[in-house]
Amino acid sequence: MMRELKVELGERSYPIYIGEGLLNDASSYFAKHGISAKSPLLIITDEHVAPHYLDALVQNLSAGGFQAASAVVPAGESSKSLQMLEGLVTKALEAGLDRKSAIVALGGGVVGDLAGYVAASYMRGVKFVQIPTTILAHDSSVGGKVAVNHPLAKNIIGAFHQPEFVLYDLKTLQSLPPRDVAGGLSEVVKHGLIWDAEFVAWCDANAAKLLSLDPEALGYALYKGCGVKANVVSQDEKENSLRAILNLGHTIGHALEAVAGYNELQHGEAISIGMIGSAKLGVRYGAPQEVYTVTKRVLERCGLPVVLPRHFDVDAVMSAMMHDKKFAEGTMVFIVPTAIGKVEIKSDVPVDWVREIVEELKLEVQR
Amino acid sequence: MMRELKVELGERSYPIYIGEGLLNDASSYFAKHGISAKSPLLIITDEHVAPHYLDALVQNLSAGGFQAASAVVPAGESSKSLQMLEGLVTKALEAGLDRKSAIVALGGGVVGDLAGYVAASYMRGVKFVQIPTTILAHDSSVGGKVAVNHPLAKNIIGAFHQPEFVLYDLKTLQSLPPRDVAGGLSEVVKHGLIWDAEFVAWCDANAAKLLSLDPEALGYALYKGCGVKANVVSQDEKENSLRAILNLGHTIGHALEAVAGYNELQHGEAISIGMIGSAKLGVRYGAPQEVYTVTKRVLERCGLPVVLPRHFDVDAVMSAMMHDKKFAEGTMVFIVPTAIGKVEIKSDVPVDWVREIVEELKLEVQR
Repeated sequence: MMRELKVELGERSYPIYIGEGLLNDASSYFAKHGISAKSPLLIITDEHVAPHYLDALVQNLSAGGFQAASAVVPAGESSKSLQMLEGLVTKALEAGLDRKSAIVALGGGVVGDLAGYVAASYMRGVKFVQIPTTILAHDSSVGGKVAVNHPLAKNIIGAFHQPEFVLYDLKTLQSLPPRDVAGGLSEVVKHGLIWDAEFVAWCDANAAKLLSLDPEALGYALYKGCGVKANVVSQDEKENSLRAILNLGHTIGHALEAVAGYNELQHGEAISIGMIGSAKLGVRYGAPQEVYTVTKRVLERCGLPVVLPRHFDVDAVMSAMMHDKKFAEGTMVFIVPTAIGKVEIKSDVPVDWVREIVEELKLEVQR
Repeated sequence: MMRELKVELGERSYPIYIGEGLLNDASSYFAKHGISAKSPLLIITDEHVAPHYLDALVQNLSAGGFQAASAVVPAGESSKSLQMLEGLVTKALEAGLDRKSAIVALGGGVVGDLAGYVAASYMRGVKFVQIPTTILAHDSSVGGKVAVNHPLAKNIIGAFHQPEFVLYDLKTLQSLPPRDVAGGLSEVVKHGLIWDAEFVAWCDANAAKLLSLDPEALGYALYKGCGVKANVVSQDEKENSLRAILNLGHTIGHALEAVAGYNELQHGEAISIGMIGSAKLGVRYGAPQEVYTVTKRVLERCGLPVVLPRHFDVDAVMSAMMHDKKFAEGTMVFIVPTAIGKVEIKSDVPVDWVREIVEELKLEVQR
């Protein structure tokens, strides 16, 4: 079964195709979307993904009349740098990419962010195609946020650059390690929590299928997750207001990532703990208790951490949060649930409350 | 007298203000255009311009309630690098620039391109204000093309990022060295040659006033030059077709710049020789002889070179041109005048003709 979803952004609208084995038909999607076969393409991927899918993609495109060069970058966040951008532009020049060429991201969020920024910058912007190979990337493949890091700040150098289309081949997810499956589901559940109570209930009931990578369940979950994000982004492409709700769980989550040791907490895991914190905050503001109990249950069922490991230092977490751009004197901006599937943006959350909640997260019964 | 010109680009439209002493009133222009006084600004300038105008601008903005940090980069093309971008983002972070901040370019084309790209990239795009201090910058201050260089190619990493407004203070031009005055007039005349025969006649008659920096003549010339460019850019912001006519003289010109020794030919000088070449090509295609004679006369009157110094190697010039992206097998794309004030885009100019014309440029009577 192939699902198709349209991200509505006026003349920058684009479709997301989700289905099994779509990569076997890659070149026809490129042709259908008017990617020029006369101009060379550049596929950017990482050393984890390349051995699995790169050759097949290059061959498929080649059989379809496309000329595809490729660049393989080291896996991980450190590849999102200006140095890497310069190297990839060298590659693009050497491969003869012109203004009608497209840059293709084959991989997870890091590859998407990096390749997208190359596409946004090369010759002041060329076409961009996303082929995500992780569940987590369903989030970054919608909305056109692309960026590299600066030594002092993540994602601070970037652009809004929408792809021509997104090709989500569910088969590429079968090789994901279990921890990456759960981590990806964290953002899927988040999309339910901010927008769609019914979808949260569905995740709650189908978590086991998702963890076992059942293709039908996975296709539906990605379709729904991408759909929520597409809805939000359509209404606020440049994050002037509404788009901020996508940050549910991210203020605490980012601080935990900053404080955690290397590889101790993945992004999805940190966000999961952050969403538990947001749920607690919601209840404190008067939301029904089920906002907390359901949030906790669904995340646990998805194999995600819902408590803060005891060795985390609350002061360090708070201090990391204070450096977050969402902070202002004595209060903080938080995305706060009011019910399952509903959130509001609160700009005056007392810092004291946040500290108390971070402390509570440590005191929860540890598994 | 203050002239105002609107660059029509839908929701990205912006005005250009041209007049004497406008910098004395800088903060009111910032306020009028909704630049936030709560968020710090970053002024980017170079070491040649800073001693003349930076302190006054900072003080004026400060008196108007704005908080302005500044960064001074070395003068010259080598500042348009990714390394410089990284350093300027460090500066922006240290100064606390947020998403409502503006980046201000105070200087010529290099500073405008660099600061514009910082503005396009920082936090995925913040506001941008241009304060050009050269005549040549009238060209780059219209149209939103911003970029840095890559070791293998100029302007290859960039964006389209339109400013909020352009503040052209004619007083800042009084300190320009004579060679930069003439060089800047080259692009002014180009704008006449592609669009406006009457304005070419005016330049021909008023060249002496322009060279002596007569404020009224200069204000009019910049108003007309910016006006032509604004017209072209309004019809084709992303250079899909019409915008290419702005490249009159640039194919030969860029090749001359590439071959010339350091500081031997400035951009405007190289373009001047290139436009003579284009005029010759036009006549060869059947344009009236005056296309050549008038083009040559007006450029000479503006103090620009119109012949190729004898020591230039024709093979080297041709080879540099072949690396230009406008080249395709055996033929080249050229902007060719059909009359004074009218050009067409020819995509099948024989390379042999171009070579003959480059040879002729050397054989012209040398001054």
